[in-house]
Amino acid sequence: MTTTQDPWFSRLAERAQAGPSELSAVLALAASGGDLVDFSGGFPDPGLFDTQLLAQTSAKVIETRPEVALQYASNLGLPGLREALREDVARTQGVTPAEDELIVDSGGVDGLTMISKAMLDVGDGVLVEAPSYLGAFSVFRTHEGVCLSMRNDEHGLIPESVIEVVEDAQVRSITPKLVYVIPDFQNPSGLRLSEERRIRLVEICRRLGLLIVEDVAYRDLAFDGSYTRSLYELGPDVTVQLGTFSKTFTPGTRLGWACGPATVIDAMAQAKTNTDQCAGALGQCILEAMIREGHYVAALPRLRAGYAERARALLSALDAELAGGATWTVPEGGFFTWLDVPDVDTRALAAVAVDAGVAFVPGAPFFADPVSSPNLRLSFSRTSPDRMAEGVRRLARAIDRFRQR
Amino acid sequence: MTTTQDPWFSRLAERAQAGPSELSAVLALAASGGDLVDFSGGFPDPGLFDTQLLAQTSAKVIETRPEVALQYASNLGLPGLREALREDVARTQGVTPAEDELIVDSGGVDGLTMISKAMLDVGDGVLVEAPSYLGAFSVFRTHEGVCLSMRNDEHGLIPESVIEVVEDAQVRSITPKLVYVIPDFQNPSGLRLSEERRIRLVEICRRLGLLIVEDVAYRDLAFDGSYTRSLYELGPDVTVQLGTFSKTFTPGTRLGWACGPATVIDAMAQAKTNTDQCAGALGQCILEAMIREGHYVAALPRLRAGYAERARALLSALDAELAGGATWTVPEGGFFTWLDVPDVDTRALAAVAVDAGVAFVPGAPFFADPVSSPNLRLSFSRTSPDRMAEGVRRLARAIDRFRQR
Repeated sequence: MTTTQDPWFSRLAERAQAGPSELSAVLALAASGGDLVDFSGGFPDPGLFDTQLLAQTSAKVIETRPEVALQYASNLGLPGLREALREDVARTQGVTPAEDELIVDSGGVDGLTMISKAMLDVGDGVLVEAPSYLGAFSVFRTHEGVCLSMRNDEHGLIPESVIEVVEDAQVRSITPKLVYVIPDFQNPSGLRLSEERRIRLVEICRRLGLLIVEDVAYRDLAFDGSYTRSLYELGPDVTVQLGTFSKTFTPGTRLGWACGPATVIDAMAQAKTNTDQCAGALGQCILEAMIREGHYVAALPRLRAGYAERARALLSALDAELAGGATWTVPEGGFFTWLDVPDVDTRALAAVAVDAGVAFVPGAPFFADPVSSPNLRLSFSRTSPDRMAEGVRRLARAIDRFRQR
Repeated sequence: MTTTQDPWFSRLAERAQAGPSELSAVLALAASGGDLVDFSGGFPDPGLFDTQLLAQTSAKVIETRPEVALQYASNLGLPGLREALREDVARTQGVTPAEDELIVDSGGVDGLTMISKAMLDVGDGVLVEAPSYLGAFSVFRTHEGVCLSMRNDEHGLIPESVIEVVEDAQVRSITPKLVYVIPDFQNPSGLRLSEERRIRLVEICRRLGLLIVEDVAYRDLAFDGSYTRSLYELGPDVTVQLGTFSKTFTPGTRLGWACGPATVIDAMAQAKTNTDQCAGALGQCILEAMIREGHYVAALPRLRAGYAERARALLSALDAELAGGATWTVPEGGFFTWLDVPDVDTRALAAVAVDAGVAFVPGAPFFADPVSSPNLRLSFSRTSPDRMAEGVRRLARAIDRFRQR
């Protein structure tokens, strides 16, 4: 095992001596296996993907386009896929990115890496929701950015809190650069931000010269297939939208996209070259074929129904087992619900819960500022509906045991 | 088009305002197409891959292992592939990395990103060969590292120059951390470093507490299948070895590996989580199957023969067209030969050459210190043997034209 006594330890970069991120801990937890009912990672369920179609398409693109699928791609992505994605943004959001306004990347975390490299100098500020995706904090901080918490209420982000945070940052000589928001079925809260708040957020950011980073990881997964107008649609001049195909296509090929102002996309493309050169061409060819042949869109109803069924099963188990002992959000899409368990430090609870056979991610790491949080995130995305009740029973037992200590 | 007048330009990170890297320019050149004979990028020839076998294997792993191939992988890589790679290192290098001493990454540039994040604080020094791989300079600099040039001669790196550079760095208050070396069929020189120099290099780095970053991108591609003992084999205590599957398997799945001291690999794994989370599981499953079934090793002789044939064709064209006007290295493996064209600034020549229908990468960007270089790199890897003579004729014509200006 690695120890701080190792001669190389003192030679590591300072950031590396800080130890593993919270996200690593989550992934390790998820991998521990056993009889655990695992509500931890934001993982899709591969059982909802059309395995046979993907196998056929994969073989087909290798056989018919080997000179593309088995070669390096441009740092911007394959032209055909980029065109398909621009058309898709136009179709679902009513804004058509120009050719130099969209890039293919290697998924959500890669997109965050690109935007960080493009925009952040040492000590620059990134406004983040409280709570928000913990992996994003890690990326911003790895690039020497400072995370500044905005305020959320039971409906999600409060747009006006941007103004307060910017004023406070100026006092601290921090240059605020980015506003990171997950408006659809947010990670971790599960909430969808109203159109009215989105409009106000865009106006405020436009006025203050801030770039919105809109993470739309769960946007296609409203249980009823509905869409709220995106921040990119409302403010394409002040928004870089980051999408991922890890939830709706597969995480196995590491693919996502970013669209936004050409100057920023160009800087992200440079960053791509210096990070991993390009996204994988094989995956890009498979995805392009799936989109062009209509399979990508055709698969969405099955995915939505699958996750809706899981959400229903989880929520009714929570009603049965935890009413009175906790409250939770009722998601209309995505992978998550967010619990409030009064008077319980959920970081301490997590260890008790694993012993009881259930895993979740405690709330604290979803806040950029250190807190002792009574919240926890349950992901229902890859737990089969018939395991939900057992998982929630174990959670209720763990909470009881914890409160009796 | 992007302009510096754009309102977002002044908000970009300083590094992004510097404009595109030399590597971007190379990739753009390679993509320009037309009747060009393209000696520019270090691209493999997909025509040498077994397309049908890859198509079958891809379909097979999706059908038989969807819960792995279509899911997120651990940041360390899939356990089965890691085991196969550890066995492969043991078989070809006689050193067996422990379980926590090897990680799967997304290829060479990703490996460089990981080691930079793991090791470099702002202003730390990275010793590099002169010349060396220009993409590596970009990565080190993106992570605020300072590239310090060692000295090379006609046999490659001079190990003793490490000592001079370290002394000079200390005078400049730079902390030297890494020594980046490509010992096999180097990019761009095509040279293979002798075992004797490797031994001296390891001894010096061990004595000075420097971590060697050994890039073995072309190691498996000696035309005669021979191997010189690796730096990792000679000094596993002071070496992180970076491998890529982009040359011998396919760049289309973005896969490589790193092995070295556990403390450093652990820090690289943390960095992986914060960069793109994990390497693609689909590609990992395909590669694991190809290795386990013996296809990966079985394919190497065909690749070696293919590139050897191209090298022979290029070298005999050079003999026929450029003897007297230039000198060049005679590679025993890999993708490159390195020309010296006396009294010619090859950066200026490059534009003339593209007009004449031939592309190469000029020498200057392969040096970390700004130089006007009479060198240029020819990559023979994806030019068909029967196009070599025409390409070199065009090059000779461009040189003549340039000298007559």
